[in-house]
Amino acid sequence: MPENLIPPPQHYPNDVICTVDTVLLTLADDGLCVALLKREREPYKGVAALPGGYIHADKDIDGYGAALRVLKTKTGIDVPYLEQLAAFTGAARDPRGWSVSLTYYALVPHAVITAAGHPGVKLVGVDRLHTLPFDHGVIVAAAVERLRSKSQYSSLPCFLVGELFTLPQLQRVYEALMGEALNKVSFRRKMAELDVLEAAEGQMDTSSPSRPAQLYRLRPEFRDRLGLLKRGL
Amino acid sequence: MPENLIPPPQHYPNDVICTVDTVLLTLADDGLCVALLKREREPYKGVAALPGGYIHADKDIDGYGAALRVLKTKTGIDVPYLEQLAAFTGAARDPRGWSVSLTYYALVPHAVITAAGHPGVKLVGVDRLHTLPFDHGVIVAAAVERLRSKSQYSSLPCFLVGELFTLPQLQRVYEALMGEALNKVSFRRKMAELDVLEAAEGQMDTSSPSRPAQLYRLRPEFRDRLGLLKRGL
Repeated sequence: MPENLIPPPQHYPNDVICTVDTVLLTLADDGLCVALLKREREPYKGVAALPGGYIHADKDIDGYGAALRVLKTKTGIDVPYLEQLAAFTGAARDPRGWSVSLTYYALVPHAVITAAGHPGVKLVGVDRLHTLPFDHGVIVAAAVERLRSKSQYSSLPCFLVGELFTLPQLQRVYEALMGEALNKVSFRRKMAELDVLEAAEGQMDTSSPSRPAQLYRLRPEFRDRLGLLKRGL
Repeated sequence: MPENLIPPPQHYPNDVICTVDTVLLTLADDGLCVALLKREREPYKGVAALPGGYIHADKDIDGYGAALRVLKTKTGIDVPYLEQLAAFTGAARDPRGWSVSLTYYALVPHAVITAAGHPGVKLVGVDRLHTLPFDHGVIVAAAVERLRSKSQYSSLPCFLVGELFTLPQLQRVYEALMGEALNKVSFRRKMAELDVLEAAEGQMDTSSPSRPAQLYRLRPEFRDRLGLLKRGL
């Protein structure tokens, strides 16, 4: 049969590869860093890439569940909170064929990655990334842009500090992400307005040479979701 | 072979249904409206739903291309600009099985929908929607929330007016979306800062009983992308 008479492929179930990819961001010595993992299989076997994997339609409830499973299984890291970044799609992004990558990003304190202790996880500064396989470079850039633009409107940066922190420590995280100095008084007013923090009863940070500083943490109802400000910091 | 010894399904190519769904928003007499189309096939045959369809891996370059194709084919409407909303995913959202819906939203002037003249397209006020099939109600609500939160930071609302408009007409669209009155002087200053408009040389709106008003349009480079404000209106 001549090629142009071959019937078109069926579209249901359609021949699309469905994967999740995760962008795990943290603050380390190199500033904002992303976690990479060497790929165990072709394509790009042995190359550092975003932790990802196929949707397991028999096990995963949804894309979010698949991303949590992939992160936990491949890096040992349990994240309290993931946010969907976007779907990266098309015929050109994966040599295996037409593919959809559902991407999710998470912010974790550096200590969480260290505690998980996965030998293959490598942190690389987002401004020092070399070429990544697939469109992973574009995915990381989109996650960093989303994080930076959300920082001034939300409690998102709170996920980068540890469980307990002082207000000056938190302010430095916001400043690192937004790339600008913030006024202390207006930062504290905006944090009060955001209303996501609580003082840790009787717990003080005594590491500073000046007087002890009150320690804060996220209020329980904000440990797995965002608080939003209508106007930015 | 007992059921619990059946080998697990292969994950590549994995058994996931990949579709696109489109949320076409416009301003009409009922305020902000969404375009619905009766479904031609099961499931939910005959029920009004978002225009959508399968990814055609043999034809579509990517999800964006698939959404443009689906809109054009099913509603006759050519949109200048679509934005990805999110991926809606999981085992529960479609009776046919584990599915991914890549969703895109577009804003068009009412006249564009009227000109396309598709007999099946029905505009329904987003605040008057009855139950929609699948998770289409959740998808519409997410699109409306995205549009409203983006309105104060971007040129997005400009896509809801016609090609030519006066500044008071444009201000009324921003106000309708944001649900609040805007100060005329600061609105005009912010529009100048956004720098997405150009005066239509020698073209005036003479329909108003007061003096003729200058007509504006989007600058060519912003007709298929967004202009962004760092701080809101």
